[in-house]
Amino acid sequence: MSQTLSPGATIGILGGGQLGRMLALSAAPLGLNCHVYCPDETSPAFDVCSQFTCASYEDADALDMFAASVDVVTYEFENVPDATAAQLSAQVEVYPDPSILSITQDRVTEKQFLEKIGVDIAPWAKVDSLEDLRASVEKIGRPAILKTRRFGYDGKGQTTIGPDDDLQEAYEAIGAAPAVLEAMVSLECEVSLIGARTHSGAFKAFDVAENLHENHILKTSTVPADIPPSLQVEAFEMGRKIADAFDYVGVLGVELFVTGTGGDVQLLVNEIAPRVHNSGHWTQDACTVSQFEQHIRAIAGWPLGDTARHSDVVMTNLLGDEIETWADLAPEPATSIHIYGKAEARPGRKMGHVNVLSRL
Amino acid sequence: MSQTLSPGATIGILGGGQLGRMLALSAAPLGLNCHVYCPDETSPAFDVCSQFTCASYEDADALDMFAASVDVVTYEFENVPDATAAQLSAQVEVYPDPSILSITQDRVTEKQFLEKIGVDIAPWAKVDSLEDLRASVEKIGRPAILKTRRFGYDGKGQTTIGPDDDLQEAYEAIGAAPAVLEAMVSLECEVSLIGARTHSGAFKAFDVAENLHENHILKTSTVPADIPPSLQVEAFEMGRKIADAFDYVGVLGVELFVTGTGGDVQLLVNEIAPRVHNSGHWTQDACTVSQFEQHIRAIAGWPLGDTARHSDVVMTNLLGDEIETWADLAPEPATSIHIYGKAEARPGRKMGHVNVLSRL
Repeated sequence: MSQTLSPGATIGILGGGQLGRMLALSAAPLGLNCHVYCPDETSPAFDVCSQFTCASYEDADALDMFAASVDVVTYEFENVPDATAAQLSAQVEVYPDPSILSITQDRVTEKQFLEKIGVDIAPWAKVDSLEDLRASVEKIGRPAILKTRRFGYDGKGQTTIGPDDDLQEAYEAIGAAPAVLEAMVSLECEVSLIGARTHSGAFKAFDVAENLHENHILKTSTVPADIPPSLQVEAFEMGRKIADAFDYVGVLGVELFVTGTGGDVQLLVNEIAPRVHNSGHWTQDACTVSQFEQHIRAIAGWPLGDTARHSDVVMTNLLGDEIETWADLAPEPATSIHIYGKAEARPGRKMGHVNVLSRL
Repeated sequence: MSQTLSPGATIGILGGGQLGRMLALSAAPLGLNCHVYCPDETSPAFDVCSQFTCASYEDADALDMFAASVDVVTYEFENVPDATAAQLSAQVEVYPDPSILSITQDRVTEKQFLEKIGVDIAPWAKVDSLEDLRASVEKIGRPAILKTRRFGYDGKGQTTIGPDDDLQEAYEAIGAAPAVLEAMVSLECEVSLIGARTHSGAFKAFDVAENLHENHILKTSTVPADIPPSLQVEAFEMGRKIADAFDYVGVLGVELFVTGTGGDVQLLVNEIAPRVHNSGHWTQDACTVSQFEQHIRAIAGWPLGDTARHSDVVMTNLLGDEIETWADLAPEPATSIHIYGKAEARPGRKMGHVNVLSRL
C-alpha cells in the first residue's frame, strides 16, 4: 500500500494558498508534478503547477476526476470537509490520513488525544453553554482563553477572559459556539517543532523555532530558539510521540508553550497542525531540504532529507501592506524573499515572508 | 524604458528546458509569473509556469500573442533565431539585448569582441576552408581544437587535432562548416564566473567555480575553486568588463581557462554564455539568492541580491541514467537534489544535478 513515487508522478494538493504553492514549488525539483485543487479562482498555487482544478470541495465529479489524475493526495489546510476526504480516500492514498483531521479539527478531541498519549497540555475544560463557562472559570481561574472548538486560526474565534471580563460577553464574542476554556499559563516563550514521519515510521525534525506573535498572528520565527538543549530534546520526543500515535505520514507542526522560569521550565503542547506550518518557513533557506520538500518526500514514499541547519535564521512574515517593502528588502545581505502572489493585500493577511540568515 | 516589474507581472521565457524551468521556479518566490514559449511539447518548464505556448520560434502569430501577454522577455538558450528576437524586441523589452546574441552565437565575432575589449583569450584563427585549416595549424601548432563557429555545445561540433591527426578528416568531422581553430593551452584547471548586471550598471558576481568535464560535458562544479585570490579578483574584473561592454542586463556565464603553473598563472576566456549557466547551479543551495533568481531580478529591474556563499559546495550533474540514483542520494547529509522532469534519459543528457554542501 505504501508506494514510492518516481519522478514524473503527480501529487494532488487540496488548497491553493501559499502553503500549497510552496509545496508545489518544492515538488518540482524532485521531478514530481502537482495538481492543485481549490475553489478559489485566484489561488496562488495555480500559477506554479502542471494542472489545477477550480471547483468546490463538495463537487463530487470534480473530485473524482482529480483523484483519477494523481498518484497521492495531500492538503495544505486542516479543515478539509470529512466527505471530501472520504471520497478521495476511497480512490487514492491521502496523507496525512484524514482520520487525523477529525481529531485535530476539534480542540476537544485534540486535547483528549494529547492527554491519552501522555503529552502535557495546559489545564482546560469543555464549554458547551454559558453555565459550562461559569463552572470552567471557577475551576481553571483567570486569566484564561476561550476558544471555539472548530475553525479557529490566527486568533479568530477566541477571546481572553481577564480578571474583570464578563463571561456572557465573552461567550457571545465567540458566537456562543461549542468551545474550550484554556488556562493562560505564564509564558517564557512560544516555540514550535516541525517534524516529518514516513510510512515506515522514520521520524526527523528540524531545530525548534522560537515564535513571536502580533495580534495573534505569527510575526517572527527565530532559530535557534533561546531554550536549553534539554527542552530541544523534549520537544523532539513530544513530536515523535504525537506522530507515532497518529501513524502520521508527512510534516506536522507542534506549537509549544515554554512555561515556568529558571531550572523549572516545562513544555506544554498548545496545538497540532497536521500540515506544513508557517513557523517552519525558515527551513527554505537555512536547510538543504525545506519543510515543504520534506512533506513531499514523506507522502511520496521517499527517504526523508537531512534536517541539519547550515545557518542561523530569522523568518519574518510580511502582513498586509508590509509586502510593499519588497524593494527595500531585496538587496539586503543574506536575505531571501518569498512573495505569495496574492492579488489583494488585506490588513493582517499573510502576503509573504523574508528569511535572513546569519552564521551558525 | 528600463522598468521595474512589481509582483504580479509576467516574465516571458523562450525555451522550456531545465534552465527555463529553474528560472520559472525562481521567479515564483518573487511573486512574478512566467509564460514559457517552446516548440517542444514535453518541455519541463511547462509544468511550473502559469502559462505556456507550444509553438515554433518561426510562428509569427504565436510570438505576437506571447509578446502581448508578458512584461519582459528573456531566454534560456543562446541560439534564439534573429527574426524571433527582432519580432519580440519590436513589441516588448528583451533581456539580455538580442544584439549580444549575434555576437556570442558565432565564435569568430565573440573572439573579436573579446580581443577588442582587451580580454585575454587563447590564440585562434578563422577557418573557412581546408586551406585555412592547414595554414592555421602551421601558425597555431598542435595540439589544437577545431570548433564550428555556430551551434556547438557540450563538445558537439568540435574535434581535437593531435600530433598525428589528418587535417582533412578533422575538417570533415565537423562537417566542413565555418570554424575556428583554437590553440590547446596547457590547462591548470577550468573555472567559471557567473555575474549579473542591472539596467543601471550595477554588477555582482558569485564566487568562481572550478569545473570538471567528462566527454566535454560538465560533470562537477566545486566552490571555492582552488585558485589564488588574485585570480578570483581578475575573473570578477573580466566578467564586469564583458558585461559593461555589452551593456548587459541579466546573468552571464564566463568560462575561463587557468593556464600556466606556479606564480605564472593566467586567465583566458574560453567562451561567454549570455544566460544562466550549468556551472552556476551550485548557487541554488549555497547562497540566499541563486543565479536563476538573480537573472529574474536583473531583467525585472529589481536590485541584485547578495551573492555571498554561506557554505562550500560541490555540484554534480546527473547525466543519462545516473538520474536513477535519486533514491540513494535523497537521504544523504547536506544534499539537495534537482531533477529536471525530462521524460527520456538519453545517454549524456542532463537529467538533474545534486548540490552537496559543507561548512565554509
